This record gives sequence, structure tokens and C-alpha cells, in this order.
Amino acid sequence: MSRLRWGMVGGGEGSQIGFTHRAAAELDREFELVAGAFDIDPGRSRSFGNSLGLDFEHVYGDWQSMLAAESECANRLDLVTIATPNNSHFEICRAFLQAGFHVLCEKPLTITRESAQELHAVAVTGEQICAVNFGYTGYPLVRQMRAMVINGELGKVRLVKTEFAAGFLADAQSDTNPRVRWRFDPELAGPSCVMADMGSHAMHLACFTTGQQIKRLSADFANGVQGRQLEDDASVVFRMEGGTIGRLWVSGIALGKTHGLSIQIFGEQGGLCWNQEHPDQLLWTPLNGSSQILERGTVSLAPEAQTANRLAVGHPEGMVLAFANIYRDLAASIRTSGDGSTISPRQHLFPSVVDGRHMVDVVCIAAQSSKAGSQWLDVPTQEDWV
Amino acid sequence: MSRLRWGMVGGGEGSQIGFTHRAAAELDREFELVAGAFDIDPGRSRSFGNSLGLDFEHVYGDWQSMLAAESECANRLDLVTIATPNNSHFEICRAFLQAGFHVLCEKPLTITRESAQELHAVAVTGEQICAVNFGYTGYPLVRQMRAMVINGELGKVRLVKTEFAAGFLADAQSDTNPRVRWRFDPELAGPSCVMADMGSHAMHLACFTTGQQIKRLSADFANGVQGRQLEDDASVVFRMEGGTIGRLWVSGIALGKTHGLSIQIFGEQGGLCWNQEHPDQLLWTPLNGSSQILERGTVSLAPEAQTANRLAVGHPEGMVLAFANIYRDLAASIRTSGDGSTISPRQHLFPSVVDGRHMVDVVCIAAQSSKAGSQWLDVPTQEDWV
Amino acid sequence: MSRLRWGMVGGGEGSQIGFTHRAAAELDREFELVAGAFDIDPGRSRSFGNSLGLDFEHVYGDWQSMLAAESECANRLDLVTIATPNNSHFEICRAFLQAGFHVLCEKPLTITRESAQELHAVAVTGEQICAVNFGYTGYPLVRQMRAMVINGELGKVRLVKTEFAAGFLADAQSDTNPRVRWRFDPELAGPSCVMADMGSHAMHLACFTTGQQIKRLSADFANGVQGRQLEDDASVVFRMEGGTIGRLWVSGIALGKTHGLSIQIFGEQGGLCWNQEHPDQLLWTPLNGSSQILERGTVSLAPEAQTANRLAVGHPEGMVLAFANIYRDLAASIRTSGDGSTISPRQHLFPSVVDGRHMVDVVCIAAQSSKAGSQWLDVPTQEDWV
Amino acid sequence: MSRLRWGMVGGGEGSQIGFTHRAAAELDREFELVAGAFDIDPGRSRSFGNSLGLDFEHVYGDWQSMLAAESECANRLDLVTIATPNNSHFEICRAFLQAGFHVLCEKPLTITRESAQELHAVAVTGEQICAVNFGYTGYPLVRQMRAMVINGELGKVRLVKTEFAAGFLADAQSDTNPRVRWRFDPELAGPSCVMADMGSHAMHLACFTTGQQIKRLSADFANGVQGRQLEDDASVVFRMEGGTIGRLWVSGIALGKTHGLSIQIFGEQGGLCWNQEHPDQLLWTPLNGSSQILERGTVSLAPEAQTANRLAVGHPEGMVLAFANIYRDLAASIRTSGDGSTISPRQHLFPSVVDGRHMVDVVCIAAQSSKAGSQWLDVPTQEDWV
Repeated sequence: MSRLRWGMVGGGEGSQIGFTHRAAAELDREFELVAGAFDIDPGRSRSFGNSLGLDFEHVYGDWQSMLAAESECANRLDLVTIATPNNSHFEICRAFLQAGFHVLCEKPLTITRESAQELHAVAVTGEQICAVNFGYTGYPLVRQMRAMVINGELGKVRLVKTEFAAGFLADAQSDTNPRVRWRFDPELAGPSCVMADMGSHAMHLACFTTGQQIKRLSADFANGVQGRQLEDDASVVFRMEGGTIGRLWVSGIALGKTHGLSIQIFGEQGGLCWNQEHPDQLLWTPLNGSSQILERGTVSLAPEAQTANRLAVGHPEGMVLAFANIYRDLAASIRTSGDGSTISPRQHLFPSVVDGRHMVDVVCIAAQSSKAGSQWLDVPTQEDWV
Repeated sequence: MSRLRWGMVGGGEGSQIGFTHRAAAELDREFELVAGAFDIDPGRSRSFGNSLGLDFEHVYGDWQSMLAAESECANRLDLVTIATPNNSHFEICRAFLQAGFHVLCEKPLTITRESAQELHAVAVTGEQICAVNFGYTGYPLVRQMRAMVINGELGKVRLVKTEFAAGFLADAQSDTNPRVRWRFDPELAGPSCVMADMGSHAMHLACFTTGQQIKRLSADFANGVQGRQLEDDASVVFRMEGGTIGRLWVSGIALGKTHGLSIQIFGEQGGLCWNQEHPDQLLWTPLNGSSQILERGTVSLAPEAQTANRLAVGHPEGMVLAFANIYRDLAASIRTSGDGSTISPRQHLFPSVVDGRHMVDVVCIAAQSSKAGSQWLDVPTQEDWV
Repeated sequence: MSRLRWGMVGGGEGSQIGFTHRAAAELDREFELVAGAFDIDPGRSRSFGNSLGLDFEHVYGDWQSMLAAESECANRLDLVTIATPNNSHFEICRAFLQAGFHVLCEKPLTITRESAQELHAVAVTGEQICAVNFGYTGYPLVRQMRAMVINGELGKVRLVKTEFAAGFLADAQSDTNPRVRWRFDPELAGPSCVMADMGSHAMHLACFTTGQQIKRLSADFANGVQGRQLEDDASVVFRMEGGTIGRLWVSGIALGKTHGLSIQIFGEQGGLCWNQEHPDQLLWTPLNGSSQILERGTVSLAPEAQTANRLAVGHPEGMVLAFANIYRDLAASIRTSGDGSTISPRQHLFPSVVDGRHMVDVVCIAAQSSKAGSQWLDVPTQEDWV
Repeated sequence: MSRLRWGMVGGGEGSQIGFTHRAAAELDREFELVAGAFDIDPGRSRSFGNSLGLDFEHVYGDWQSMLAAESECANRLDLVTIATPNNSHFEICRAFLQAGFHVLCEKPLTITRESAQELHAVAVTGEQICAVNFGYTGYPLVRQMRAMVINGELGKVRLVKTEFAAGFLADAQSDTNPRVRWRFDPELAGPSCVMADMGSHAMHLACFTTGQQIKRLSADFANGVQGRQLEDDASVVFRMEGGTIGRLWVSGIALGKTHGLSIQIFGEQGGLCWNQEHPDQLLWTPLNGSSQILERGTVSLAPEAQTANRLAVGHPEGMVLAFANIYRDLAASIRTSGDGSTISPRQHLFPSVVDGRHMVDVVCIAAQSSKAGSQWLDVPTQEDWV
């Protein structure tokens, strides 16, 4: 079976997310990196592509050239991953989608609600996949949580508690560092710093695992470090479509946590607790029973978790393998997309443009609520969309 | 040195908190239980007092008789602990205070703001101690946190995150059980269930460790189990006197946690994380440094923590010993109160009527905020009090 | 019900074990401390007894005076606890036993096999209780392990792994400190340091939980710090009566652990893991199932664990409450010993002279094996005893 | 830079270790899989190679054909990985080495001391790399431990404690399963089951991190499950070249652990503790200081750990990325091996034939010691080798 042809925009020298995408995409030999515009600087883009051993003629100085050339290529790319700065996602995604390419865009999909809505419209018009890399959904035990909820093991889901809190923005002196500064610049980051960057992951996990969207919310954005234009700490309370209560805490000033993404789901019949820093264990507590440690790689897990599993129990998998599950699912969709069947974004486990758009709404409405004294505001769900 | 004479109201047969008070108060041989009215049922009160080996004539059928008789006694009680149902605290406390007894009242001090204010007035009028048993403040490492904040090791405290979430109210069927039912009855519990019962502990920890009171708050009370008159889950966001941001989550439906009280404090120079279920460890993360596990019983701790320490490092102390620190501090205050010096509640580490009143305000105002769409409301701090 | 009269030998000013015994013995109001010879220095003994508020005439300058006077006392002591240096246990225990007192001796029972044998003989001749304070057996979840083994939940027990390893002897410079020096002096400590002091606890846990004695062993004693006369690290492999395989590691130079006592029990049908530093949780893994966290204080535990439980789930109990269970069991035995029924040391859960003697054998034979190139040596079990 | 040409023997359909090698070798785009004989069944070998998208003419039905054809190939393989059953390693490794290929052999190198000695002789005669896949040495924090020891941060290393204990052999009924049965068959497994399979990893970690070899040992092999020809549980005590004391426990019947490899290193100045199931944290306890949690990905780590790091702190890496570090080191060695410089196996961090041979000695001598009543036996170290 021949490998799928894959290209990247962004993710060049020094980009960790770029490395993770490459390691993940090629892990199963489903995709092969064959083209790329890796850097805003044409020279750096070319030398990086060369260092990866790519064919010279498929390494580009900018994404526009890549789009033009690859669109004309007889042997078209099967997927383009976009890992550029957040405020460029919209334009690049739209261009590749309109040229008929399947796209995987890094989150956030865009930084304004309008552009997210437009991308969604573009994507659903064509038959291209527009996936959004909420990569933590690739972890087998995240999929296990979703499966347990769907299978009714928790009964009605009463409450979701999620947090993503770490200390990487705790050092006030780092604000002059360009790698930090853009995060607090509304031009580059949109109306939110940590809620957009971290909170959207946590909120998406809440949606992914419960199968519900966010219906309304009240938010409190705050600044632990004075002088920042955007929040470095936020709390959001919310209600989901199905009535589930939600609590989110997100922070960049929480010294002591190195990553800090976790989710807890509480239903009538039991509770779940998962922590990204130790992704191979899931705590499951049935009502009136003892807590159990569900281990990735064991036979009692749901098929969705077993399919996403690669290593034997006890051998840690980690984030690259989680991302690889997103890519493997994309490969399966792409391989079936040529056979005349239409692709529904909801058929697959990888996050889609629908999820991407919903999270942009959530982030922007949270910013708005916080400005309005934590007023409760409605969030449109997919059925409200035109 | 002779032991102090100690009496109890409430805390009889089957009361765990009663056992804990007795074990703690007598642990250092500072107090000796000599009198009590242990139960609302006079017969049960007497048989319980007898089973404890108390002198027959100091065991009473009701607190009124106890108050009358002990007030006349030549050898007066040095301290009376009140561990009756919450809605009776006010009347009993007031009566013993007015009769000139030192009092330790279980939390919450009262269930209405007005009665808390009145008790505060009564207490400050006389020279009696009116302590409130926010017992978790007796843990050595809780005092370590407070000391580190006061000593400036964290720099300015930017953020406090605290939660108290467990699953003991997750079973909807238990609502018919009298031990559960009263919790959701506003007549008996006041305007709040979990926020009053659990949240006040967590909020007091935030105040105790940071040395600040709550200035304003926005709350969201919710019900995971339908049909309950009071909340079984709550989120409160707040700001403290000194500008510290606050986040609280409290829940009774969080299946998977057996107790779930924890506090995290984040400052400019480092962060702290403590969890009541494993109270002998405190995680301290200095800015740009590795996290350190501070162990109770080690010589590098602050004097406040070392004084509160009893066992060698590695030998778990637990909650009885935490409470015992409250009693030991009370004993020291009581022993010095006879020597003509006035007692200031702020001089000692045990929580006082000031803390008790502030927490009643916080709970009631949180209930009010939640009803008003999570509106931000001011909380009076001590300097606002008449 | 009147409290039992209790006396102490040793355990005076600055003795942590003394504090723990007092806190534990009086916790349930079963015992009341009424007499003592607390210190080798008569003056310090008396002033300490006074500070505890004891009756002047029952505070003694030495144990011989205490023995003489209390033997003549109409109102005899119900129990004497001996918490003196190890090499004095034999003489004091024997004297009190022969005078007809029930005794609780700190471990090790003695420092030679001959004296342990003699004490055993003295104890079984009379009807006095001679208990030995392997205090960790008082933890509810240790009793839960024993109950699960007895009830057959593990099937045949294949393997016991236990360790007691900490770093309190890691600092070579501390060897001049008198509190450390005696540990490496064979005159005071017998033929072993860490194996006697720590290893005997771990070995007793293995025996207590499996209901088996040690049948044969091979040991390797070693020194991480040069110049010490006795071992600061040891490994012992063994076989138990019922064929169970055993592995023990004990160390005083294991920097990073604050206490380090743990036990794991592996049977045909499941495995157990318990750690003294977090005594309220027990990990239970059934064959082909997920690991479960058994929490102290939950209703699914065995009666032996529930009886030993005092606080609600999630509220840490700690070591004082574990010791209190030993005392409560002793009280029950003492209260029934006057009614004409003979007391069998095996009827009660508190460790007896049989356990004390067996552990002295184990320690001494381990020392002998290590000297003999880790030769396997037989350990007599109770049925081999004359 | 062109990718290195890489071939595999073994590791076909259903082989987890095969997947891990492929994912790891290609992760950095240093190696590209171009040839293989993947299965003992020629048909399955070919269909598997095809499923990987390999060139038809480089997929072989058996390793002999692969050796013959690839030896003649103008464009020779840069590395051959051997992941066949243990008892075939010797013959295949020898053949490929003698034909001039660099080899990475799965552990154990061989199942007899004689064959290990011979392979060592073959390897040192030529200039080929003969690496052995003790893959856990690829974890950044394992390298951190080694660096800290070498840099003297622990002072003299007094004690190493390592264990590798899990429950995958606990089910007696699984012994009829072919995937289990071979493990207890001396023809296929050599003189040891768990000591060879798991213990050699743990022992190698002890050697790798301390920079010492094993000097003498005493072992106790045992069987928890009756009827097995080889041990399912073992304890080994040992001394290392530099005088370090060693304790190893290895087990296949330890229900409750999913993997169970850990190592603790105790020196004069501090102790380290690392656990493979959570490989991104390393506990470091300086003498008289608090334990610190060293996190993979932080700037304070040693260069050896930082070089081996790929993801930002808090994003779990896992075993595939550990293996990838072995391959990246191999690539660096291979790329410099053509420039005339001789390769010393000790210059690189990947485990070499020297380590492989030493571990075969250790395993075989441990089996011998156990049979001889745990007699202490000498283990030759590299300087004793002819």
C-alpha cells in the first residue's frame, strides 16, 4: 500500500509542534512528508526542507508558491498540515481548502468568530477534510472516556471539571521575550491569551468526551502579572447542551505544574479522572465502589481505546503517539474519500472544523463575558448555525 | 501543671466529630473532659457521658442545665466545645459566651449573617475566646504555607486556587437518609449546602494561608442531582483584600475523591500545593526551579510548622493531631488569659469569631451572587465592620 | 466503665515513642496514665511525671522502685508499657511479668535469642499478657490485608515483598551523635542495626498479614558508610511456613525516603500493595482485573478493618491511631482476663511475645547467615519451640 | 543529508518490539527502512514487508537470503536490527557482523556465556558496531542519572536498588500459551526466565547509571507458580567494581504492577529514584535537603539529558522516543565510522556488545549461584576478559 503524500506549512527549525507532527504523521508509514514551506523566511524554509532530505523542487520559500505549484502537480498532496502563527491560519487554510486540499490546521482554527464561521462554510461546501489539531483527543484513554460516556457507563453526565494550568507565564521578566510577547498582543493572539491557547484544549476535551457542545457560560479573566494586555488566568463556568454543569480553570501563572491539563467527568453512576502528564492511567470510580486504575493497553478497555493503542501496558506512549492517532484516522478518511462516499466530519474521531469553530466561539464569548462582569452569555451550538 | 477543665455540648454517640474533639483535646493532657450535654435526647446524653467515665453530676440532659449548673460551679470549665447541629450554634454559643465561658464552636459559626454579626459583637464585648473550628488550619504544613507567605518567600501572592470536592452526595437515593436530608433543607442548613459545609473550609484556608480576607466574589451554584433545594456543586471566583485572584470549586457529587480538600497558592516567586488527604507533604516550586517536596517533621520548616509537629518525619500524623494543635493553642491562650493580659483573637493561630463571621458572610453572599446570575458582589472585610 | 490503670517505664522527655504511647493509650479513654518511671535519670523522671500531671506518689526515679511499690499497691496497674533502650527490655519485662503485671514491650523484645526464649517461657507460664509493639499492625488496612489473605481472596500466597528503607543513617557525620552511635554498638543494639530496628517491623508485617512464620532465610548485610560495626543496609530472602517466597530490603542509607516501610503480597488470585507513609490507601489488583484503591473507612472493607477504623474516609488517621488500636485490643483482653478465661496470645490482633521471640530469632539468624556468606539457615517456628 | 539504509530481521506482524523499532528508527528521518526478513514464515515475511510499502526486491523470506543479497548490493545497508527469538540472536548477529554490517541486536545478546564471548570477539575484531538494545537507557532522565553520578553530584555511590517486577506471568493458566511457554523452556530461553528477560534490563540500568560493572553476586531464583522449569521470581544481591552494594528484585508474578522497572541510586551526597512507568520525572534528594522532582525538558538538566530530549516539559515522551535516542546515537556513530576513525563502543551512549556480554554473564552466573544455595560467585568484568 503506497504512502500518502503529505505537506507542511510552518513547523520549521526550532518548532516543537513541527517535530511532533512529522514524527506522528510518519509513525505508521501512512504519510510521507514530500513538500513544505516551513518558515516565514524563504531561505530558512529551504535549508530546513533540505535537512529533512526532501526533494528540492517540493521545498518552497512561502506557502503561496507551495499552493500554486502543488495545485498544478499531477501527483497531488493528500494532506497539508498548517502549523503557522495563529493569526495566519485563516488565510492559509482557506486557500488550501479552496484549492481542493485536505487540511489539518493547528488550533486555534482562527482568532475571530467571523473567520471561523467562514472557514466552516468553505469546508462544508467542498468535500475536503478540514481537521483541527486538538491533539490530546488522540490519547487512547481520552477515547476511553468518550466511549464510557457514550456507552452509558456513567449514566447521565452531571458535571465536567477541566483545567489546564501551568507556570510557563509566571516569570514577569519573560514578557520581553518574543516567544512570550505575542501571546499578550491582541493583534496576534485575538481576544484571549491562556483561554485561547490552553482553555480551548480543555474545553474541547469536555466536548469530545461528553459528546456535547457548550450552551452558555460565565467567565472571569484575570491577570496575575500586571501590565499584560490579555489574561494570564481564567475561570469559566458553563452549561452544556445536555444540561451538564461545567467548571474550567486555566492559568499560565500556576507555578508547580509543568503542563496541567486534566479532566474529570462525574455522572450518576461513576466518575472519571484523567491527567495529561500521566496519560496512560485513567481513574474510574463507580458509584459506591472503589476507584479503579484503568491502564492503557489492557483488554478490558473499549474498542475505541484499544484501536488507538500501540504499546503493551506499562510502556509509556506519550504525546507523539497520541498525535499519530489523529493522523491515522485522517489517513483512513482520506483513503475512503476517493470512493465516492461523502465524508461527514462527525464520522471520525479527529477534531473537525466544527470543533474548531465552536472553540473559537467559546473563547471569544468567554472574553466578552469577562468584560461584562461575568455575565452569562449564550454560545451558539451547531444546530443554531446557519 | 493541672489539666484544664473541659466540657462538650453535642458530639455524642455516633458523632465522629465528637470523637475527634475528645481525642484531640486530651492528646497533650492539657484538657480533661469533665462535663457535657452530649445529645438532644437527655437519656442518650447521660448514658454516653457515663460510658466516657465522667462524673455523674457533670453529665447533663440538655445544654441549658449544663450552662446553669456549670455557671454556679466553683471550679468552672475552662473551655466549652459546641458540636451541635449548625442551626443551634448561635443560641448555644451566645449563652455560654455571655455566661463568661471560653467557647470553641464547630463551623459554620451560624447560618445567617445577622447571627454571626451578633456573636462577633458578644465575643468582642467580653474577654472570652470564641474560636471556630476550621480544624484543617491545625495541620503543620498548612501553617508552613502561611509562614512562607508571611515571610515573603512567594513574593506577592497572585492567585489562590482551592477546592473541596468529593462524592459523598453523589448517590441520589441517599436523599431520604436523615443524615443527608438536613443538608438540603434551608431551615437547618441556611442558604447553602456544599458551599457552607465544605466551601467555607476551603475559603478559610485561602484566608488563613494568605493573611487576607475576601473582598468580592461571583458564584455559580448548581445541582447535579435534581430536586435538591440547595446546591450540590459550586464555583466561586473572588478577589482578596491584597488583590489576590481566587478560584474555588466545591462539590458533593465528584465521585472518585474521598475528601478532596486542596489548596494551591501562586506567587511571584513560587507556588505551593497541599492536599488534605496527604497532609504530610507540601509541594513547593520556586520560580525557575524544580518542585520540592517539603515533608512535615523536617528541620528546614518554619517555626510555626515545627511547633505544630509531633511525630518524626515519615510517620503520618493525620487529622486528630491537626485538631490537637487547635486545642494546644487554645490552652496556651486560656492559661495566659487569667494573668490580666487581654486576649486578641488575632494573636493566635486558632481560627476566631472573626474568621467564623467572615465565612458566614462569604457563604451567604455567594448564594446571593449565584441567584443574581453570578453577579459580582462585595464582601465586607473586618475593617468595614461596625 | 472505669478506665484501666496504666504505667510506663521509659518514654520520658524528648522521647517520641513515649508521646505516641501516651496519645494512643488514652485516646479511647480505656487507659489512664497513673504511674511511671520515665527516665534513667531519677530527677528527670520525676519532673517529667509531674509535667504530665501525675500523682506525685506514683512517679518513680527508677523502674525497680516502681515495680516494688506498684506490686504492693491495692489498686494494681492493669498494664505497664516498657519503652526503654533495647538492651534493657529483657530484664524489665521479666521482672514485671514475674510480678504479675501485663506488659507491652517496645520492639525488639530483646537483643539475644536466649533472652527472648526466656521471656517467652516466663510469659506462657503465667497468664499475663506480654505484648510486643509492632505498632504498624494497628493500621486498619494492614488488618484488611490479613483478612483478605485469611479469607482466601488472594488464593495461595506465592510471594511477599517488603521493604523498610529510609535515609536517616545516610549522613556519615552523624555517627558521633549519641542518638545514632548506639545503633551501631553491638553491646547496646545486639548483632544488627537496621535489620533489628527496621527489618523486624517489615518481617513481622509479612508474618502478620500472611499468618505464617519464617522457615528459612539467606541474608546479606552490608555497609554503605564505612567504619560502622553493624550493617546499615540489608537484604534477606526467605521462605515461610506455607511455602511463600519472601524478599526483604531494609536500609538506613536510602536518601529520598522519609520512612519507607511497605509491603506487597502476591497470590494466585491477586496482589496487594501498602505503604506506611500513606496508610489510608491499599492497592488491590485481582488477577486479570484493574487495580483498585481500597480506602480506609469504606463499607466494603473486612470487619477487622472496619473495627479498627475511627475517622470517615478521606480524613487521614496516622500512626497514633494505629497504636491506639493496639491499646484498644489490649484493653479488651485485659478486661476479659479477670473472668477466668485463659488468654491465648493468638486470639488477639496485637502482637505477642510469640511474635517478639520469632523476630529476635529472625534478626539474629539473618546476621549469622550474612556472616556465613549468605548461607541459607533454618529459623525455628513456633512448633519447633520446646 | 541522505537517510541511512536500514534493514530488519524479525519484528514482523504482531511484534510490538518490531513496531517500536520502526517508529523509533525513522522518527528523526535518520534511518529509512529499506529491507527485511520479518518472519520465520517466508510468506508472512513477504506480505508484511509489502504492507510496509518496501521495495519488493528487498523483502526476503529468510535472513540467510537477506544476508546473501544485501552483501552483494552496491548500496549496502547501514544498519541491521535483529529482533528474532532469543536463541537465534547469536547465529544471525555473527553472520551479519562477519559480513561487515553494523548490527543492533535485541537483548539478551545470546542465551549462553560462550556465544556471548564469541560475539564479543567477532565484534572487536572488525570495526562494525554491535549494539544491544537495552532500550531504557535511551530515556533522557536515565541519562541524567548517569550524568549526575559521573559529575559527582551523589558523591561515592553506596548502593543501587533496582527492580523489574510485574504480573504478566501470574496467571498459571497462561503457561500453555505459546507466547508464554517458550519463556520457561531452557532450550529457547537459556538458564533463566525473568532474570534474563527483565533482570538484565534492570542490571544494565545499574551498570549504565553508575558506570560500573557487576563484580560478584548471590542469587535466589524461585517459583511462585509450580511446575515451571525456570524461575518466575528472583532476588540478586551484588557488589559492583567500585564497591557499590546492589539489590535487585525481579518478578513476573507481581500482580498489581504493569511494568515495574525502577532504579534507585544512593550516594554519600544524595539519592535518585526513577520509575519507567513515569519516565519524565526523576526524584533527587540531596543529603539533608528536600526531595526535588526533576522534570524532563527543563533547562537545569545535564547536557546528556537535554540532548536526548524532544518535547517541552509536561508533554510525555514515552518509550518510542527513548528508543529513538538509541537510533540517533547509532546514526551519529555510523556516519562518523566511514571517516577512518575507529569506533570505541564506550564512546557512545548506546549499549554495546560489551554490555550485552556482561549481562549474559550476570544472568548465567545468577542462575548458577541460585542452584548453589545462593553462593556468592565472581562475575568477570571487562578487564578480566581475554
